[in-house]
Amino acid sequence: MENIERIGISLEKKLLADFDKLITKKGYQNRSEAIRDLIREKLSSQALENPKTQTVAVVVLVYDHHATELMKKLTNLQHSHLFQTISSMHIHLDAHNCMEIIALKGHAGEINNTAENLISQRGVTLGKIHMVPSSAKHSHP
Amino acid sequence: MENIERIGISLEKKLLADFDKLITKKGYQNRSEAIRDLIREKLSSQALENPKTQTVAVVVLVYDHHATELMKKLTNLQHSHLFQTISSMHIHLDAHNCMEIIALKGHAGEINNTAENLISQRGVTLGKIHMVPSSAKHSHP
Amino acid sequence: MENIERIGISLEKKLLADFDKLITKKGYQNRSEAIRDLIREKLSSQALENPKTQTVAVVVLVYDHHATELMKKLTNLQHSHLFQTISSMHIHLDAHNCMEIIALKGHAGEINNTAENLISQRGVTLGKIHMVPSSAKHSHP
Amino acid sequence: MENIERIGISLEKKLLADFDKLITKKGYQNRSEAIRDLIREKLSSQALENPKTQTVAVVVLVYDHHATELMKKLTNLQHSHLFQTISSMHIHLDAHNCMEIIALKGHAGEINNTAENLISQRGVTLGKIHMVPSSAKHSHP
Repeated sequence: MENIERIGISLEKKLLADFDKLITKKGYQNRSEAIRDLIREKLSSQALENPKTQTVAVVVLVYDHHATELMKKLTNLQHSHLFQTISSMHIHLDAHNCMEIIALKGHAGEINNTAENLISQRGVTLGKIHMVPSSAKHSHP
Repeated sequence: MENIERIGISLEKKLLADFDKLITKKGYQNRSEAIRDLIREKLSSQALENPKTQTVAVVVLVYDHHATELMKKLTNLQHSHLFQTISSMHIHLDAHNCMEIIALKGHAGEINNTAENLISQRGVTLGKIHMVPSSAKHSHP
Repeated sequence: MENIERIGISLEKKLLADFDKLITKKGYQNRSEAIRDLIREKLSSQALENPKTQTVAVVVLVYDHHATELMKKLTNLQHSHLFQTISSMHIHLDAHNCMEIIALKGHAGEINNTAENLISQRGVTLGKIHMVPSSAKHSHP
Repeated sequence: MENIERIGISLEKKLLADFDKLITKKGYQNRSEAIRDLIREKLSSQALENPKTQTVAVVVLVYDHHATELMKKLTNLQHSHLFQTISSMHIHLDAHNCMEIIALKGHAGEINNTAENLISQRGVTLGKIHMVPSSAKHSHP
């Protein structure tokens, strides 16, 4: 394809042999794919350091289903003008705990603040945010 | 409630004042909730160091929808005897990219291996795994 | 001592039991010390998100001793007006590799930039920065 | 040099352009050096997941100089048969706090355990461990 470029890189034989062993273990078909993944991962983490980066975020919350305050907050979040909620998933972990997975779009900084506010609610036992720059393939760091 | 215990802890006034400032900023109602979150976070990360820990995992993949090999792998994953797939969510990010969010149960070690194998597939541009010990509230580190 | 305050926190018996088990394993004498460490760690990581935070940094570099460009950069660093170099340590790892450990004072943001520039030098095989807010005990997040 | 190998990798033009922008910002002279750093970083973090990996570790402790128990522990550490202490550096941060930087050799797992035990001591306000596989250049993941 015309949007593909081929470059040459030089590295120590020992380093290359160690890398080949690692990527075989991880299931890579070839070095190009493994190196592209390293590059994308680096670009993504750099982009996310900027609070203005437009992202797609996955917010994961584990909470006690008696946490009624949280319910209101979650509803507010999904109607906030700051974000565009894409979809959400609700999982019953056990008799007491639920997991809510919310996918939404917004700026890295605002998503961080909102997610921290959710995690701080009484009844939320664990929370994590995972973000990817909106256009992962075409990210501008 | 009878399953709640109250303990006393002593700390420097300055440290307490700094902590109070931080948790107010993050939206906590009281110190107990903030300290419980610190403790849960620590217990969770410790538990996940053990590959045998039973977890609920959220696997997030961003990929090119032309990645047909991946499709087969994802189908296999969801029928693997190693895991119990709970639910999955598919999001169209743009003309080229999709995001797949898969919630599943399994051992930390096996989920790590499987997720790394998915991420290594051609066409997968970014991948992340987020795990919580199966019973977040009752985790045995 | 008069600068010590005692506070009460409430938490689930199960969570407390799990925490007690963990801190015994890690060698803590009591809960207060373990909770203080969790609080300090949190305050420290929050403070370091602000590039203006005054820090003491430990920069660790592994490099090939033939990397003469790096030598010049390291000398420049230690005479930069941006930082106050406190001390440095040089270790011969093997026939080819050296480790340089440099302790210096400066703003988090500037130290990050400088360290990344050092790590990018030809001959530097690994590099890490570890920062603590200048007054770890009295940190203002 | 004969121990250098040149390989070709193919990647999307957009991804390459983004990567070139990033490495220029970070001060890299060429792509090979930047990609070698990504590979080394990956191999190093993989190697350290194995507790048996032989490492050089830098332990950084911030503590109150009245912490007399710690002093004894630090002395014991430096005479332990488990480790080979290479060098240490002591810094006076302010009227109350000291920073101790200890470079030592040992297995990843044992260093982790020992460092956690040091950090748990009363008077230690912050602690971090940074490890590199003993032969960073020739690491076997």
